[in-house]
Formats: sequence, C-alpha cells, structure tokens
Amino acid sequence: MTAPEFQRARSPEAKRRREAAILEAARSLGRERGIREVSLTDIAAAVGMHKSALLRYFETREEIFLRLTAEGWDEWSRALSARLRDTADPGPAPVARAFAATLAARGPFCDLLAHAPLNLERNVSLGAVRDFKLATLAAREPITAAVRDRLPALDERDVTDLVATAVSLAGALWQIANPGPEVAALYRGDPRLAHAVVEVEPRLARILTATVTGLVAAAGEAADEATG
Amino acid sequence: MTAPEFQRARSPEAKRRREAAILEAARSLGRERGIREVSLTDIAAAVGMHKSALLRYFETREEIFLRLTAEGWDEWSRALSARLRDTADPGPAPVARAFAATLAARGPFCDLLAHAPLNLERNVSLGAVRDFKLATLAAREPITAAVRDRLPALDERDVTDLVATAVSLAGALWQIANPGPEVAALYRGDPRLAHAVVEVEPRLARILTATVTGLVAAAGEAADEATG
Repeated sequence: MTAPEFQRARSPEAKRRREAAILEAARSLGRERGIREVSLTDIAAAVGMHKSALLRYFETREEIFLRLTAEGWDEWSRALSARLRDTADPGPAPVARAFAATLAARGPFCDLLAHAPLNLERNVSLGAVRDFKLATLAAREPITAAVRDRLPALDERDVTDLVATAVSLAGALWQIANPGPEVAALYRGDPRLAHAVVEVEPRLARILTATVTGLVAAAGEAADEATG
Repeated sequence: MTAPEFQRARSPEAKRRREAAILEAARSLGRERGIREVSLTDIAAAVGMHKSALLRYFETREEIFLRLTAEGWDEWSRALSARLRDTADPGPAPVARAFAATLAARGPFCDLLAHAPLNLERNVSLGAVRDFKLATLAAREPITAAVRDRLPALDERDVTDLVATAVSLAGALWQIANPGPEVAALYRGDPRLAHAVVEVEPRLARILTATVTGLVAAAGEAADEATG
C-alpha cells in the first residue's frame, strides 16, 4: 500500500511532468506508425509505466489522443494565423494556400483530425469531449480574425465553413495518401489505380482555392442584393 | 466431418445467397447503431451462423463493410446521376444541391465513407482493396459524365476534386452530426458548444456550392488565358 500512496501524493508539478511525458510518448509513437496502430499498452511501455498507473492520468487511449488533437489545433491556429498575417498577395488563392501548406506540413495532426470525430470522441468522458470542443473553439478565433482581415467580404459563418472543409479534407486526404506500404505498392503497380494516389498539399490548395473563391463570390452577390 | 463438407459443397447460388444475407445483416446493424459499434460476432449472431463459418465467406468485418461501401458508391452514383439529369436549373448551385441531398439522404453510406480510408481499407487483403478501388472508380464515371453535361466548363480533374470534397465532407459532417446520445445532449446543454451541432444537408450544400462556383470560375479563367 505504501508505494501507491506515495505516488498519489506527488506534487502537482510532478503530476504535470508525468502527464507531459505520457503525451510526448503518444505523440512520438503516433508520428512513427499512425495513431491507429498505437495502443494504451504501447504508450505505457514507451513511458516506462504500468498500464494501471497510466490510467490514473488518462482514462483511455482516446483521451490521450484527444488531448494531442486539442494541442494540435492550438499550434496549427498560431502557425496559420501568423502565415496569413505575413501574406502580401491579395485574393482567395493565397489564403487557400496558407491553409493547405500549414495542414500538409502537419501529418500527425491530419491523422488526428480524421480520427477525432470517428474514434476519439467516442471513448472518453463528457468532460473530456467538452474540454476538447472548447479548445477547438478557442483555436478557431485567431484563424477567423486573420482570414477576415485578408478577405473582409467573408463573415464568421464563411470562415467556419472554410475551416470545416479544410480540416475534413486534410484528414481524409492524409489517410488516403498514407495507406500503409502494401497498399501503396498496389496503387503504384496498377495504372487503373493511379487516381488513388494523392498528394495532400497541391490537392488541398486547389480545392480550397475553389471553395474560398466561391465563398467570396457568394458574399459579393449577397452584398449587391443588399445595396441594389 | 460430414456437415462442414456438405456446407463447403454448396452450389454457387447458395453461396451467393448466404453472402447476401451476411451483407444484409451487417447493413441493418450498421444502420441501427453506426458501423463502429458492429463486430463480426454481432453479424454472425444476426445471420444465425458461427463466427468461424462466417469467416469462410468474408475474411474480416472490415471486408464486409468495404463491400457495403462499394455497393453504396454504386447506388449513390445512380441516384446522383439521375438527379443531375433531371435538374432543369443551370449553374453551380443545383449541382451542389444534388450532391448534398443525395449524400445526406444516405446516412449509413456517409458513415461508411468516413470509415473506409481510416479503418476499413486497413484490415483486408490487397485483392479486397483493389476490388473496392475499382468499384469506386467505376461509380465515378456516370457522375463525371452527368456533372460535365450540366457544367461543360469543368474537366475530369475538377469533377474528381468535387467528388473527393463531397464524400470527405459528407463523411466528416455525418460523424459530427451523429455523436451518440450523451454527447448530443452535452452539445444542446452548453451554448458555447452550439457550433458543434451540425445539419448535414444545408451545410454540405452551402460549402459545395462555393466549391463548384470556384471550380467553374477557375475553368473560365483558364479558358480566357488560352484564347486571350
């Protein structure tokens, strides 16, 4: 009984350090092999803990990856907002390219984006889902401000739709672009399957350029109707 | 030994009937509770077989659901093509609305669309992935023809991008719109989480209208450059 009592009595700082080590181990394993292939046992082994001890810090493997997804949103939001602020070119295409480049450069985040609504939000407590949703909500705010600064015709709903399109597509395209080595070889070997080979960044940039162009055109029409 | 020998010697017609019954049981369970919650054991129980007997027809639960996804593509392709042919209104919006309406009316197919690249293609043989990819390729052909008939400015790559956007978004939005009863209650109960509540069809129609508008505009610019 003495050892666990001692462990539970750790300082808040020691607890935070341990949590950070668990998250870092999960991040590193997910980057290596895709998060689908990472179990709670793998994470516990990587951080040198027993699984039962790890469960005092996180309730499920999904909670660990949901926390990483929230951190990914925060980090991506900063990077995208900074890039949008630094973009000199006007118009929809540079905004779309900023989304595409910052997402494509974050493969593990794209992996998490696809898993979040499907697999991660479904095996955690309501409190964990609430924290996650509030974190993504906060991460959207600087993105909305930066996009509307570049493209003042767009309203908040337009940017919400743009962000939803960007993250859904980035998640799906990343999964298609990273199918595992055997299936990748199959794609390369059969010319009929050439369409299954996807390059995330140019594909995303092309589609998002069309979407942003269309959102700006619709906003222009709405403004014309209001004043005309 | 006699009973299994007799079963294996079934006629091809009896084998097809048994396969169809397995697929129908999986389809019905998936529709009821979402495919994430359906195991191979559940399907075997629903069809009144032992799991080991079921494995003579399909190698994994993922193969069963991948077959249903391929069937879903074929059925959706027919419905969408017919609807596009029957659309009298010109322009991008009716095309976008045809995609949105036909996808939103097929919730179980949207569920499968999200799971296919993430979970289904990763636990089946290469032959099963190849069959699936060729089936989705065939299903795209009538869609491409019908869209280009409505919007002749678009080329094949444009329609490929439009279909990729539509199915990725439909899969992601459906997952977000169907989060399980507890999380749905959380969303309704916390006004800060109102953004998490999604209505698939209007959201999809709005975004795809923007995307199609932008693709048509880009095709127009390319044509101007070629002739100008």
